[in-house]
Amino acid sequence: MSRSLNLAVIPGDGIGQEVVAEGLKVLSAVLPQDVKLETKEYDFGARRYHATGETLTDADVDALKRHDAILLGAIGDPSVPSGVLERGFLLKLRFAFDHHVNLRPSKLLPGVATPLAGQPEIDFVVVREGTEGPYTGNGGTIRKGTPHEVATEVSVNTAFGVERVVRDAFARAQARPRKKLTLVHKNNVLAFAGHLWTNVFNQVAEEFPDVTTDYIHVDAATIYLVTDPARFDVIVTDNLFGDIITDLAAAVSGGIGVAASGNINPSGDFPSMFEPVHGSAPDIAGQGKADPTATVLSVALLLRHLGYEAEAVRIEDAVSADLGERGSLPARSTSEIGDALSVRVAG
Amino acid sequence: MSRSLNLAVIPGDGIGQEVVAEGLKVLSAVLPQDVKLETKEYDFGARRYHATGETLTDADVDALKRHDAILLGAIGDPSVPSGVLERGFLLKLRFAFDHHVNLRPSKLLPGVATPLAGQPEIDFVVVREGTEGPYTGNGGTIRKGTPHEVATEVSVNTAFGVERVVRDAFARAQARPRKKLTLVHKNNVLAFAGHLWTNVFNQVAEEFPDVTTDYIHVDAATIYLVTDPARFDVIVTDNLFGDIITDLAAAVSGGIGVAASGNINPSGDFPSMFEPVHGSAPDIAGQGKADPTATVLSVALLLRHLGYEAEAVRIEDAVSADLGERGSLPARSTSEIGDALSVRVAG
Ligand SMILES: CC(C)[C@H](C(=O)O)[C@@H](O)C(=O)O
Ligand SMILES: CC(C)[C@H](C(=O)O)[C@@H](O)C(=O)O
Repeated sequence: MSRSLNLAVIPGDGIGQEVVAEGLKVLSAVLPQDVKLETKEYDFGARRYHATGETLTDADVDALKRHDAILLGAIGDPSVPSGVLERGFLLKLRFAFDHHVNLRPSKLLPGVATPLAGQPEIDFVVVREGTEGPYTGNGGTIRKGTPHEVATEVSVNTAFGVERVVRDAFARAQARPRKKLTLVHKNNVLAFAGHLWTNVFNQVAEEFPDVTTDYIHVDAATIYLVTDPARFDVIVTDNLFGDIITDLAAAVSGGIGVAASGNINPSGDFPSMFEPVHGSAPDIAGQGKADPTATVLSVALLLRHLGYEAEAVRIEDAVSADLGERGSLPARSTSEIGDALSVRVAG
Repeated sequence: MSRSLNLAVIPGDGIGQEVVAEGLKVLSAVLPQDVKLETKEYDFGARRYHATGETLTDADVDALKRHDAILLGAIGDPSVPSGVLERGFLLKLRFAFDHHVNLRPSKLLPGVATPLAGQPEIDFVVVREGTEGPYTGNGGTIRKGTPHEVATEVSVNTAFGVERVVRDAFARAQARPRKKLTLVHKNNVLAFAGHLWTNVFNQVAEEFPDVTTDYIHVDAATIYLVTDPARFDVIVTDNLFGDIITDLAAAVSGGIGVAASGNINPSGDFPSMFEPVHGSAPDIAGQGKADPTATVLSVALLLRHLGYEAEAVRIEDAVSADLGERGSLPARSTSEIGDALSVRVAG
């Protein structure tokens, strides 16, 4: 019986093109022979926006729907006003495909530089809610541009939305050796949303008696991320807090050059999307300088999501081995790193 | 002519008592002879809440109003439900006295341990808005406790509120050697508030042509705080982003044991309040183990705010000298550190 993997590929802007090419190279090398890989490339991002004014049309969403998963490079360019591509493409897609589990693992691998002293142990996963909180676009402005302007942003939190992501996080924590889940919020100030999150968290906890639980305010969480990151195993948090702490988490665990992420719809009703945490880095685009590691690790998350666990592990092991040797090697180009990883995963 | 300084003192909970005692000791030692220091102690916090159910009454606010400034130790105890004292006392006072400039300097002093590798240069000030954003208590809950609960939090931002804190931050940046101001927000996602902040920032910038400006998203700011903190001089930001990044800033610049803060009303219509960033640390309360340095540095901010610049500098120099020698000294008690600093500032 032959299997197939039908992938939407969105290279996007800047270094997106280069890193996605390497991600696909490693994917081809790791996939079992009997899996038929089909890829279709989509041109989204700054180029398309400048040419047509479009970021993501309904027809685009329909086309993307037909794939098993989406691999994204990076979207964003200084020539496009801040927010246009972020809201018009990235967030639109997360909402259209109900990507409510935004998965961001952080692992400090041997040999990788961290800004923290003493090479601490870092191995945790952040489960960031992806479809609610202050990201819904709710809010507005009155008296715009006048001295009496008032602008509001509304964070919307539902029991439905919080419960499904909290349950997903508990399941992930249960599957890990330490079985520990930390809720990060700011329930001492944001009392309405904070009460909902805390309450749902405590309720779902009863279904997972073997998972140790913990609560930390978001401000204190940033302290622990630099003074005691080993205390974290799985973290579940709101969309905005997750945005903030995962950038910090990426920074302390080797930088955004190696940070992968998944925008996941666990129901499978819509394809999930996998992307490096880094942006399009237009300053180094086209020079073969970008590190494709974060994209390659995103391919591992993609494979795991689609059930190819052994292949995901092979990629992760290959990346660990490659990073561990970097200190003793001369700098390599984007494609040289991709080649090296392809050889390792095939071997 | 004799001058007077009429101070409200709120020791509060846990280690608050001990550290405030040392703050007052150093204050007495540094004040010029002709300044008559009057202090009145107020009992707020967990004890009062358990005894009377009160956190801060209108009569309390009226009494506090009559002072030149307020020195606070710490408020909070595990015996009180999360949020009660935070919202009922700390935030209530910030709003009652319109403390819109929440000032939080971060300076890594020689000899002080940081979790960052390579002892980077850190010397910046965060000007956090203190009376708007998601801290206003706007929002609500429907269908509480049911599977259909919806909880909202509304971030309220006004041109009036943003402009006054942005202008204050520009003035502070202009008075520093590097003259650089960074706006931290998330204007690519929180477009209503983000537009207001960015627009006002750019407008006020025209009045300060000698100040270099910069914009960074809050998620990226957490990366720079650990990889390149030297890039920051003055930061101005929203209430919630300020809460988060100042805890991280404190962590990287020597820990919350040395982080001071001011809740300032620059108009002088109401007294400003000065407090260490740390909490009440009930686990070490009453043991003489707490480091009073953050409180002593808060006293320096208090003195500077009231015009005693030379005295503020003397305290800061004394703290620098004391911290620089700690590595070679045996551990000291709370009051021994206070004594040592008192001797230095008097000397
Ligand atoms: C680009 C932006 C919309 C996005 C976010 O805020 O979620 C990014 O920061 C991320 O973390 O994926
Ligand atoms: C205790 C809490 C209400 C407070 C805040 O969120 O402002 C604290 O974290 C701070 O930074 O002063």
